[in-house]
Formats: sequence, structure tokens, C-alpha cells
Amino acid sequence: PKMKLLGQEEFEVSSACENVPTGELESGPGSCPSPDGTSDTDRGDLGVPEDPLLFIQLNELLGWPQALEWRETGRWVVFEEKLEVGAGRWSVPHVPTLALASLQKLRSLLAEGLVLLDCAAQSFLELVEQVTRVESLSPELRGQLQALLLQRPQHLIQTTGTRPCQGSAHPREASHKEEAPLKEQHQNPLRRKLPPGAEAGAVLAGELGFLVRPLGAFVRLRDPVVLGPLTEVPLPSRFFCLLLGPSTLGWGYHEMGRAMAILLSDRQFQWSVRRASSLHDLLAALDAFLEEVTVLPPRRWDPTARIAPPKCLPPQHKRLLSQLREVKGPSMQHGALAEDRHGYRPHAPSPELQRTGRLFGGLVQDVRRKTSWYTSDFLDALHPQCFSAVLYIYLATITNAITFGGLLGEATNGAQGVLESFLGTAVAGAVFCLMAGQPLTILSSTGPVLVFERLLFSFSRDYSLDYLPFRLWVGIWVATFCLALVATEASVLVRYFTRFTEEGFCALISLIFICDAVGKMLSLTSAYPIQSPGSPAYGCFCQYPDLGGNESQWKRTEPQDRNDISSMVRKVLGDFSSVLAMLLGCGLDSFLGLATPKLTVPREFKPTLPGRGWLVSPFGTNPWWLSVAAALPALLLSILIFMDQQITAVILNRAEYKLQKGAGFHLDLFCVAVLMLLTSVLGLPWYVSATVISLAHMDSLRRESRACALGEPRSFLGIREQRLTGLVVFILTGTSIFLAPVLKFIPMPVLYGIFLYMGVAAISSIQFTKRVQLLLMPAKHQPDLLLLRHVPLSRVHLFTAIQLACLGLLWIIKSTPAAIIFPLMLLGLVGVRKGLEWVFSPQELLWLDELMPEKEMNIPEKGLEPEYSLRGDSEDSELMYQPKAPEVNISVN
Amino acid sequence: PKMKLLGQEEFEVSSACENVPTGELESGPGSCPSPDGTSDTDRGDLGVPEDPLLFIQLNELLGWPQALEWRETGRWVVFEEKLEVGAGRWSVPHVPTLALASLQKLRSLLAEGLVLLDCAAQSFLELVEQVTRVESLSPELRGQLQALLLQRPQHLIQTTGTRPCQGSAHPREASHKEEAPLKEQHQNPLRRKLPPGAEAGAVLAGELGFLVRPLGAFVRLRDPVVLGPLTEVPLPSRFFCLLLGPSTLGWGYHEMGRAMAILLSDRQFQWSVRRASSLHDLLAALDAFLEEVTVLPPRRWDPTARIAPPKCLPPQHKRLLSQLREVKGPSMQHGALAEDRHGYRPHAPSPELQRTGRLFGGLVQDVRRKTSWYTSDFLDALHPQCFSAVLYIYLATITNAITFGGLLGEATNGAQGVLESFLGTAVAGAVFCLMAGQPLTILSSTGPVLVFERLLFSFSRDYSLDYLPFRLWVGIWVATFCLALVATEASVLVRYFTRFTEEGFCALISLIFICDAVGKMLSLTSAYPIQSPGSPAYGCFCQYPDLGGNESQWKRTEPQDRNDISSMVRKVLGDFSSVLAMLLGCGLDSFLGLATPKLTVPREFKPTLPGRGWLVSPFGTNPWWLSVAAALPALLLSILIFMDQQITAVILNRAEYKLQKGAGFHLDLFCVAVLMLLTSVLGLPWYVSATVISLAHMDSLRRESRACALGEPRSFLGIREQRLTGLVVFILTGTSIFLAPVLKFIPMPVLYGIFLYMGVAAISSIQFTKRVQLLLMPAKHQPDLLLLRHVPLSRVHLFTAIQLACLGLLWIIKSTPAAIIFPLMLLGLVGVRKGLEWVFSPQELLWLDELMPEKEMNIPEKGLEPEYSLRGDSEDSELMYQPKAPEVNISVN
Repeated sequence: PKMKLLGQEEFEVSSACENVPTGELESGPGSCPSPDGTSDTDRGDLGVPEDPLLFIQLNELLGWPQALEWRETGRWVVFEEKLEVGAGRWSVPHVPTLALASLQKLRSLLAEGLVLLDCAAQSFLELVEQVTRVESLSPELRGQLQALLLQRPQHLIQTTGTRPCQGSAHPREASHKEEAPLKEQHQNPLRRKLPPGAEAGAVLAGELGFLVRPLGAFVRLRDPVVLGPLTEVPLPSRFFCLLLGPSTLGWGYHEMGRAMAILLSDRQFQWSVRRASSLHDLLAALDAFLEEVTVLPPRRWDPTARIAPPKCLPPQHKRLLSQLREVKGPSMQHGALAEDRHGYRPHAPSPELQRTGRLFGGLVQDVRRKTSWYTSDFLDALHPQCFSAVLYIYLATITNAITFGGLLGEATNGAQGVLESFLGTAVAGAVFCLMAGQPLTILSSTGPVLVFERLLFSFSRDYSLDYLPFRLWVGIWVATFCLALVATEASVLVRYFTRFTEEGFCALISLIFICDAVGKMLSLTSAYPIQSPGSPAYGCFCQYPDLGGNESQWKRTEPQDRNDISSMVRKVLGDFSSVLAMLLGCGLDSFLGLATPKLTVPREFKPTLPGRGWLVSPFGTNPWWLSVAAALPALLLSILIFMDQQITAVILNRAEYKLQKGAGFHLDLFCVAVLMLLTSVLGLPWYVSATVISLAHMDSLRRESRACALGEPRSFLGIREQRLTGLVVFILTGTSIFLAPVLKFIPMPVLYGIFLYMGVAAISSIQFTKRVQLLLMPAKHQPDLLLLRHVPLSRVHLFTAIQLACLGLLWIIKSTPAAIIFPLMLLGLVGVRKGLEWVFSPQELLWLDELMPEKEMNIPEKGLEPEYSLRGDSEDSELMYQPKAPEVNISVN
Repeated sequence: PKMKLLGQEEFEVSSACENVPTGELESGPGSCPSPDGTSDTDRGDLGVPEDPLLFIQLNELLGWPQALEWRETGRWVVFEEKLEVGAGRWSVPHVPTLALASLQKLRSLLAEGLVLLDCAAQSFLELVEQVTRVESLSPELRGQLQALLLQRPQHLIQTTGTRPCQGSAHPREASHKEEAPLKEQHQNPLRRKLPPGAEAGAVLAGELGFLVRPLGAFVRLRDPVVLGPLTEVPLPSRFFCLLLGPSTLGWGYHEMGRAMAILLSDRQFQWSVRRASSLHDLLAALDAFLEEVTVLPPRRWDPTARIAPPKCLPPQHKRLLSQLREVKGPSMQHGALAEDRHGYRPHAPSPELQRTGRLFGGLVQDVRRKTSWYTSDFLDALHPQCFSAVLYIYLATITNAITFGGLLGEATNGAQGVLESFLGTAVAGAVFCLMAGQPLTILSSTGPVLVFERLLFSFSRDYSLDYLPFRLWVGIWVATFCLALVATEASVLVRYFTRFTEEGFCALISLIFICDAVGKMLSLTSAYPIQSPGSPAYGCFCQYPDLGGNESQWKRTEPQDRNDISSMVRKVLGDFSSVLAMLLGCGLDSFLGLATPKLTVPREFKPTLPGRGWLVSPFGTNPWWLSVAAALPALLLSILIFMDQQITAVILNRAEYKLQKGAGFHLDLFCVAVLMLLTSVLGLPWYVSATVISLAHMDSLRRESRACALGEPRSFLGIREQRLTGLVVFILTGTSIFLAPVLKFIPMPVLYGIFLYMGVAAISSIQFTKRVQLLLMPAKHQPDLLLLRHVPLSRVHLFTAIQLACLGLLWIIKSTPAAIIFPLMLLGLVGVRKGLEWVFSPQELLWLDELMPEKEMNIPEKGLEPEYSLRGDSEDSELMYQPKAPEVNISVN
């Protein structure tokens, strides 16, 4: 299944940034909770009482002079939804824009108007009476105005149908006294989207010809009360604002009403006005808002375009940070800033990666930490969300098992196959879920291990070795080496794997996938040739290359290429696209009755290779010393497994996922070692953690705050960390072994297609590929990347060229008889990256890659600043918008 | 070739709107030219002197206190380009955003500072002396400040290389006296992009610790003078602004400098400040700017995102319009508004479509009008742009001729073929270019005429008629009917063809194309079967369906689907994609040596059908009465040709193309009639105007203002209206007849592929298709279309459903033996559209379709307003952003 990796959007300028931890900076100075907005829940966790969310509604008086009526024309929580009057629907949520003049008019109207703070009205009637008790109104006018205010407003409540219900309500017949909330208000689906405890603010604005002078009133109710049918949702109203007046030229009250609503929807203004004790405080809050607004000059943008809500709201640190600096002095300052700039905690302080110095010290720590969570690991799974996660991951897992099993069966001449793949996935996955440090990990064998296994098999064939016994010894040695790595706490070294290494690794593996798949496809052309009419055909038995694989290719890329209109559809198709593509390929194959090589599946539950049992004999026909010699390839495989496993583990345990139960790098590696032994003995495939499928697993288990209405992004609370979903997935996979008889209808080219797709998808997802594209693009046409805003183009190109050179070297090694040592060369990437510190400045590496641990700690604050420091406010926070997660996408699916 | 139709972007909210004619409203009241900005050239045409364009540059003082230096950090014409300090490059042009507070700070600094209007300084030295002559400075400080100001600033001049040249300039060594512009300034490529006469404005800002209080100075030079190396381009400077002061907390001078620059880059502010006579005027201009700014509230948008320049700047009518209303009274008001809302002149006032009431009156008028331009029609072609237009259109034309010729040859059993297609295209095209009312039109026969010809052939085959003589009589009758239409000035009826009709026509034809191509492809499967291994193959001669056609399909859609990064590449590939796809298909076919049906091409220059001469015999083996009976199909074909020809002509002659030489609807139809006769006699294909290729032709002949730097869109001046490019294209096509021997290598499936693509591209481009998609989309996921902002969804769906029903009915008729009368049914669409006026309100039709002529004139101004009129400023102008050109895309290629 296709999923969006964290960090994949880094190249877009307005990128996601939920990886900014705000917890530590939340509690600002002062006794009141700080008004910094966005992440309420975190603050809720800290036990500080917080202001309720405010839903703002603008009711406008329309139809002057003949047919006066109130109509809701806009609503806000953070973003604005505007009533499309003609279309009878709500607009998409957008960032509100406002004429400065209307804010200033509003200010003067409020300054002259009535301000009631802590008004004690208990009903709308009382409120209206208090508001209209102004000197300028004659008793007659007052009565007229009261009647008008009590008139029931028209709300556009979008119920399940698309037809607005405005037709059904008859405003004229509604009684003035009717103060109880209406049925339609209760049925409003918006209500469910607002969190419990939310309050309302109502702004009433309009042109009223019989008034001589404008009438402005701002009311804060002491005890919020539901004001009858005033707001579309029956929430208790805290604020009430009235802006009425005689006709003026051009716009006026509509824009002023919007201005009031936009003010009230600002968290900072809310904070101030909830605590205001006088008109002066109210105006001060408005002035403070004005201080912070950004202006767009006239005549230079398209006023009908609506600015889409950003994927994340700008972090609110800045003010707090400067306060903290004053309070805590410079030493605090640096720490806070480092975190601030990175958007995630630097590696070093992470307790899981601190070296204990004792043998197996890390493992012991991991086990100790994990044991304390063990019961909760099962209890936390009791949530309906886990069911859909199981279904989703199960489908992905069996697709993976089929693909890998098929390819492995072919690569090893049937020494292993689909049955082994299913069995191995089920056993290894289930064991890992029960024992591992990070039980959300899904194991897979589709990645670099398959590449190595292919090398190993061709090596053993070249030297006429008995493959499975040889492989058993390799496995034993790998397990031994991995245990040694666990004992020496080698996992702490993962801090040196930067994006440079990860991308080099990913690019190489992807290229191998692509070349392999294409090569296989081409070799089929000779085995099952395209017969041209002139050539002498051998007999009359004509065979064709299957296009199923190719076709699934097209089918697969299509959903990604459509535009956003069909993004709903896209997601559903995308999630199951590989299953669909496989079914389509198989269907086409059997429909056309093509003679294609098919997946080899044994007819009963026994190993794919005829004549071998489930236990691999320790020597077979191999000489005894081969068990010792196997240590050499095992060493290389250990490096490969260590890198693959730990790169994945680092990605899964990044701070932006807000994992509560901690990581277990040492324990994970230990489990991999144990499974290595087990699978080698049984002749099953070898397993390591798979990045993408594990991320998909985590993604399907996200805990999010309930969606706020009106376009506000959901805030991410964490992951349901538990062991049960994975366990169930692998139990299901185990029972799917009995699917085996069906699997023999799958043509091999379909599997090559999936394999090719995996390679292409992985290589397309990394920043490296995008930088290679930059090499070919004239500067004028380059996208506005954050990277390019901060690093000279020539330096970017140099970095890319070095990566390309490394990749070329690795490729050459891979293509020579020395191929088997290429895991060692991969490790060399870390060395090259270290060497880059002499070529590039830390600032450049910060943007192009990330910093290595010791550098990161030593770099002075100044060093992170651009060379010529501009005073621009906007510049400071750009790094915070850059998610630093690497974009590795090795084993898609 | 793939090209963007005008109106194709209507569905995107921020759409192009160059079809807003501004000419008539340009000359505002008052003696000075109005500052309404964007369309300078138009005003230039009117002979009113205009203010020169202003290039603004911000030089900042950086490096306090150790290494003071001036560096250019931003530049503006309309949009902003910011220096990316770290990356050493200019940012993409973007809409500048600004903190309101910095504008206010700037205002107070200017109010207290030095303002010199009409300063007489002749050099930078003099200017600096005058500016520093302030009381607050001690003589010593003054000297220090003067030395600092005269220090040469650093400019990032991007020459051909990507390496910034900043390294090469040594600021310390530069002499203070050096006032002559530098070589690098002259070599600046930016200079060529600014129009002659442009002036510069320099803003110098920065933090200067030795000043005790802020120093602000604003200078307008009486005679603009090149201030040495101050600005990156050696333009005479008109404005100079200095903003220096002691360190303050947080940002300050950088943002204030930007504020000044953004002010100066506003056309309205420029206009005021060029005419200001005192500090008071300057501040008033600033306040007027503030009145007009839009504010973005804090904490709700992504401050690192840069707002891209809109595709067109907002029209400046509003203020002028209200002034006009005051001046000219209500009668003027309506006319102006009607134009204003439509963005183009309503049909009715167009002189070409006024009925004269005399026989051939319209034709005579057309001829008279066109004759007066005839000489210029050749002289205007003397421009290098015409060469590239010829090449581009020539390739498109021969692709078309091959495709059509191939398909026609097959459809008519070889009665006509590629040779006829080439010859016909050359002859008809050249004649049309020499005679027609709109010589930019490119003729084609790929469209609905092919559909009809196919019907006609199968009819004549069913009744064993001699095809070509029968066709000759049909042609004679069609020519007669068309002449009758010309005589009766029937072309004025085109005003009743609204988008509803055009889209219905387009959808039907596209569907026929698609079904035809798919049907052909499937029928090949039986003629050249896919042989499955089990089936008894007939002999050993195996044949395969050619995948060439299919493949070109994939190749073709690819370039459209990539993202914008490769849009450069896309355009080049896209323009020649059909040629490329054809070559690829042919290459693959011959590489694999597939046995596919090939294009039939005669070996020498003679008609494709063996045994016929170039002149078609008038009766052949047909009975005499058939020449009379041919009148019936001819009537239908006349309707078809009239509709196809006139829909295209209306689109080509729309006001937004700013054609100067007028249209010639009657003359065009007359030419088509004459050509009808000619081609029927010679047995060549029939020709009418082709929408898309003609639009491509016009597009390649656009006259545009020289690109302003910094992201400002080019303004469109008109089309090079002439007869020569078309003539040369068709002469070239004629000589290409000798390519014929090469053409026989083209497999038919490749042509089906192109045909299929044409159908798919046409049906994808119309609004109807997008509305059909809306039927299937939940409201929440629908895009933010202008249409949906104004019309209730249920009404949109109803309109779509009616269109779908019409289409279904047409399709059913087409599939019955009554197929041949379907042109009559097409005309019925106009009737249905008329009937829709009882179902939909004029407002709804205005958004869903367009208004029919009489309705358009009768509708009261109020009627165009939404039912509940909101006072919102932004709402009024939305219709102006909606290009109203229909999106017909019938004969792509």
C-alpha cells in the first residue's frame, strides 16, 4: 500500500511540522495558562485549566428595508467558512482576510459603543433588553429593535442531504419568545465536531435604516447561556456583539462584523478579552492584535482566491522563547533553541541510545523498560481503530509474502518458496510482536536481504554447494555476530546514520530492484520469445510475454497522477492498489489464456523443494569447513541486517511519533538474531523490520484529537502502542497458508511488476532523486525549495555529485565478482559522510543532510544562523517547518 | 499538439482574466493619467504620457559593528524578490507581505525625518551631502556617515553562470569617488527585462550603532540621475530613501526598508508621491495605501509560504467605475457594468453580427472591411515570430493530414486517402488563407465531418451507390445551401450557440471518436487475433495485434501528468507529442517487425483509388435522380458544417484576443462553400475551420509586452493578424506530398491511438465533464469552484443531468438507422437551451452557461446580483475572473 512518509513533503515549502514538540514550552510565565493556541490537549494533560474553544458565528441583517431577516453568513473556529449565498452551501475553510479599514472602523465603533463585561443575563431576552438600554434610542425605536433582534435567524444547517434546510424554516411564523434551542440546532452535524465544553460567540451586524447613528455593543456573559436559536449549534454563548447602523456608502457592517468575528477567533484576543475588565482592556487587546497582523498590499494578489489553511499552524514559541531567555538566562537559551530549530529532540539525549558500558547493558535496560508496559501492550489494543489496522496491514503483509515467496522461489531454484514465505512471515512476525522492543514493527524479507540471498544462492551454485545447509551456517553466524553487536551495545552507533547514508542505501537497493525486474522481464523475452511473422516458429505452439506485470505498473501509477479532485477515491484505490493490480494482472492472464510462468506452490503443506523436510540438515553434502567459511558472508550479511534493521528502527522511533513506551534498539536486534537462527534452521526466509509497512501500521493507529470544525488540522496525540494488532495480523497470515492452492494462478511477470514498482516508488521518494533532477534544471525553473533558499546551488550540486559518485562506485563493486562485499561498502558511506564535514559548513549540512551527533552538540548557536544575519522575523522559523525525518522508502508494501 | 484553451482554467479559482478589456475605462477624470496600473501599453496607445516604470531596490547595512557593508537584499517592480542570503540567489517572485507595525513605524520615522521633494542633486555625492545635512548630526558623525553611504554596495548579479559574482568585487578597495556605473551593472541581464525609460528607487536601511536617534530621509530627485553603483542596474534614480538608526530590540530597519520599498512599488502610491508637494502629501499617500491594504490575522497561516503572483492582477475598474457613474449618470452605468461583469463585450454590439437586412449584405460588409486590411495582411507577417509559428503549425497540420487521410482511406475503402488528404489540405488551406475573413483559421477535416463522411459512405455502400459521384452531388448541394445561408445572413444566429450547445456538440463528437477508435482496435483483434497456446494456429504464421497505438497513448498522457517541476520540458514534449508518439509507434512496429495493417499510399502522384482521375465524374453508375436526392443528406451536412464552422469562428473572434481587423463570419462561410464545391469535384476531403489548431496558430502569434522583471505577468497586446503564415504552412504541406512513399510505414493502430487521444483530450477539456464528476463526489471533497460558490449544488446537478439526457438521446439516434439526421438533433440542443430559461434563473445560467442575446440585454442590473446582496467588496468582481470563453476542443491537433 502506498502511504505518505513523514518527511516526504519536505520539498514543498508549506510542509507539515507536527514534529515540533511543544510540551516543554507550554507553561509560560504568569499565573494564567498562556494563550498560545494550537495544542490544547497537551496542556490539558499538564492539568492546567484552559479556556474553552470558541465557535464564532456572524448573523447578518439582510433585506433592508422591505424584508428584514437575520441570516448566518459566516462562521469561524480558527479558519473562516463563508456562506455562499447563491449556492446555499458553506465555502471551504480558508484563512480569513480583512480590510484594515474595517478593523479600524470596528475599533472606533466599539470605543463609542456599549461594553458590558460579566453581564448577568440569563436568557436572550434579558440580554437584548440590556443591550438596547442605550440613551440614543427612543422607547419606540427600542421596542422595534428588540423585536428585530429576537427574530429567529436563518441558519444553513447542512444535514445529511445536500439540500439546505433553509426552505423548511418559516421565519415569519417563528415566535419571538421562542427561546428553547430548536430540533434542527440539535441535529446539526457540526455539533459533534466541536469538543465538549465549547462556547459560542455571536456577532450580529447589519444596516438598519431607522437608526440615526451607529450602535455598537460588546457583551461578555458572566455565565454562558444558550441564547435560543441565535447560533446554529446550541452552545452556551460567552460573547455577543452587535454592530448596527444607518446605511453608509459601500461596505460597512458586513466587513465590520467579519472583523469582529476574526478578532474573536484569535486565541490571543480571546485570552485577553476573557480577562478584560474594562473597555480599555478590550481596545488594548484589539491593538495588540493589530500589532501582529500581516498586511498584503493592494493590487498585487487575486482577491477571489482563498488562502488554504496551512497544514500546520505556525508554532507559537517565539514569544515564549524570548520570555524564557529573559527568565532562564543564556544556558537555557541554547538548549531551547536547539530543539526549537530541529523540531525534534537531538539524538544524544534519547535514553535508549545512551551507552551503559556494561555487557548486554542496553538489552537489559530495554527488557526492563518494556516489561513494565507489557500488560498495557494488550489492554491498549481494545479500540475499534485496531480492527481496521489489522485488515489493512494483513492485506499488505500477504501481498508482500506472495511477492517475496515467488521471487525467492525463483531465485533459489525452488529451494524456498511461497509456502516458506507465508510460514516464515507468520512465525517470525508473531514472535517479534510478542518479544520485540518496538512491537509496532512489521517484519519483511522483501528488502535488501532478498538481494543478498540471491547473491548467496548464485555463489553456492557456482561452487556446487548444498544451498540450505550452507545458508543454515550463514544464519548461525549472523545470529552470533548480531548477539555480539547486542552485547557491545553497537546500536548506539545508529546516531551516525544520517540522511546521506540512508539515501545512499535506499538508492542502491532501489536500483537493484529496478534492474532486477527489468532484467527478468527481458530474459522472459528469450524464454518466451516475441515471434515475428518471418521467423521460423518452433512447432505451432506460440507463446507471448505476459503484459500483466507491465499493466499493473500502469494501473499503479495512475492513482498518484490524478489531480486532487479525486483524492478521496485515490486513497481507497491507493491503499489496496497492489492487491488490485495483482488481481487485475491475474485476471487478464487467465482471460487471455496466456502461457506465462506461474508461481510454484506445493500441493500440500510441505516445503516447496521436494524431498527436504522442515528441518535443514546441518551439513548436507557440504564439506565440514564450509560451516566455518560461512562466517565471512555472514559478517557481510550482519552488516546489512544491522543497517537495514537500525535505519528502520530509528525512523520508527522518531520523536515526532510521540511514542510513550520508548524504543528498544538492542532488544529488537536481539529478536532479529534469534529469528535469524530459527528461520535458518527451518529453511524459511530471513526477516528484518520493513520501514514502509511498519510506518503504515503506525499510521493506521494514530490517536488524534477530535477534528475541530472549520478546517483546523487535527492535532496528533500519539500512536496506540500495543502488541495485539501485529499478533493478529500474523496469526491471520499463518492461517492463510491454506490459500496456497489458489496462489498458483499468479503469473510471475505480475510479481516482477510489483517489484519494479517498489523500486521506482522507493527511488522517487528520496530527496536525493529530487536533487539529481535539480542538476538538469535551469535555475529559473527550479521549485521554491527551502533547501535552495539557504544553500548555494553550486554546493547543492556538489553534494549531489558526491552522492552520485558513491552510488556509482557501489554499483561497480556490485557488478564485479566482489559483489558480495558490498554491505561493507555501504558502511563506507558513513565514512564518506564524516569526510564531508571538511567540505561543507555545518549550516549547509544542516539543510542538505542532518548533523552528526557530536557536531550537533558542539555547534554554537551563532553557527546555525545564516552568514549575514537578517533581522527578518519570518526567517527564523523556517527550519522548524522542515521535518527532518529521512525519506527512506526501501520496502514499499 | 496539446495546448491550453482559453477558459480551460475556469475551474481553478485563481484564473486568468486577460479578457477584461480596459481600454474604455482607462482615461479617468482629471488631467493626469490615472494610476490604475497594469495595462500601461494600452494607455500608451491612447497617447497619454504615463509615469515610467519604477524598479525598487533595498540595500541593507549589514555586519554592524565590525564589518559594515551595504548589500542588496530585495528588489521589486510589482512583486518581491528576496535575496536568499545563504543560497546566494534571488527568491522566486512573490506577493510581498509585511507586518503592519513596520508600516506604522515607517510612517512615524518619515514624519519626523527629512523630506526633500524635487531635490536638484546631480550625483550621488551631492545627494549624500544634502541628505546628511541634518542638525542632529555632529560634523564628525556626518563625515563618517557620508563615507559609509558612499561605500559601494554588494549586488547579487546573476550572470550566465550560476555562481554569484559577489566574491569578485572587493568592497574595501572600491574608491569612494567612483560614481560611474560599473561594467557588471551594465552586464546585468535584468537590465534587458526592464522597459526603456524605467527609473529606479533606492531604499537604504540598516542598524547603525553610532547614531543616537533614528535618521529618516525621503528624497525625490527633480531630474533622475544614475547614482553610480547604488542600484544593480544603471537606471536613473528618481527616489531615494534612507532609514538608519541605533540598534533596537528585534527587527526594525530591515522590515521598515521593505515597507518603504513595497510602498514605492505600488502604482497608486507612485502616482501620488510623484505629484506630492509636501511631507503632508507623502503621508497622505501612505495613509491612502494603508486604507487599501488587506490584513492576514496572526497565527493562521504559514509565514514561510510565499504567495505566488496571481495569473492576472486584479482589475482596477472599481474606483474608476464609481467615478464614471458619478460623471455619466445611470444610463452609462448599466453598459459599463455589463461589460465589467462579463469580462468581454456582449455579442450584440459586435458589428460583424449585426443583420444588415440586405441579401448578401453581411458578405459585402465583410469583403469591404477585409479588403482595406489586405496589404497589411502581408506586411504584418514580417516578424521573426512568424517563422516559429510556421514550423509549429506545419507539423501539426501534416500530422492531421496523415491521420485523417489514413482513417478516411480506410473508412471509404480507399476511395480517398492520404494523398487526397495532403492535396486537399494544401489547396483548401491556401485558398482559405487568401480569401477568408479570418485568415488565422486553419482548416481541417478531422472533426465531425469525418463522422458524417463515414455515415455517408456506409449508406452509399448499403444501397450500392457509386460513392464519389454521389458525394459530388452532396457537395454541390451543401455549397448551395451554404451560399443561401450567406445570402440570408444566417451567421448572425451564432449568438444563440451558448456553452450548453457547444459542449453538447463537443461531447457527442468526442464520444464518437473514442468509440470508433476502441471499436477499430477491438475489430483488429479478430482480424489479427491474439493466439492462445491451446488454439489450433492456422499454419505457422503468427500475427499479433500492434500495441503501437496503445503505447503512444501512454506516452501522450504522461507529459500532462507530471508535476510542475518539469513544466519546461513538458511544453517542448507536449508541443510535438503527437509527432513523437507517431514516430515511436512506427519505430516500435518496425523494430519488432510486427505484421500490422499499414497506411495505404499510392506509389505515385495519383488518386488513392486505382482507376479514377482527379476529376469526379458527375453521375458514374448512379441513377440521375440521385443528384436531386443528395439534397437531403446535404441539408444535414450543411447544418453540421454551419455549426462546426461558426462555433469555431465565434471562439476565434472573441474580444479577448483583441483582434484589430475584425471577423468575417459571412465571408468565412462563403469560402467554406466554395471549397466544398472544389473538393467535391476533385474528390478531396471536405474542410471546415478547426478550433484547436487555429487557436494554436493564434497563440503562436501573440504580441506581448516585453516581460517585466520580477514575476509580473506579461500583458497581452494582440495577435499578429496576417495571411502569410497560414499560406506558407499550406504551401509546405503541398510540397510534402512527396513524403508519401515514407508514409506507408505508418501502422493504422498508431493512427487509431491518435484518434482515441483526440477524443479523450476533447472530452476531458469541457466543463460538462467536470460537472459530471461532481455528480459522483461528496460535497466535502468538491473543489472550490467559482460555479459552486454561486449556484446550489442541486441546480448544478439538474443542469448536468439535462445535458446528460440530451447526450443520451443523441447517442441513441446516432445508433439507429436514423443516424444520418443527427445534425438536425444537434440543432435541437439550441432549442433545449432556450427551454432551460424556464427552469433556471438568469443568475444560474450566467454561471452554468452564458446568457442568450436578448436575455443579456434585458436583464436588469439588479438581476445579476445574488439574491441576498452582501456588501462584501470582494464578491463583486468574481465574475470578472471567470473567462467566459467556451471550452470546445473538438479537433485537437
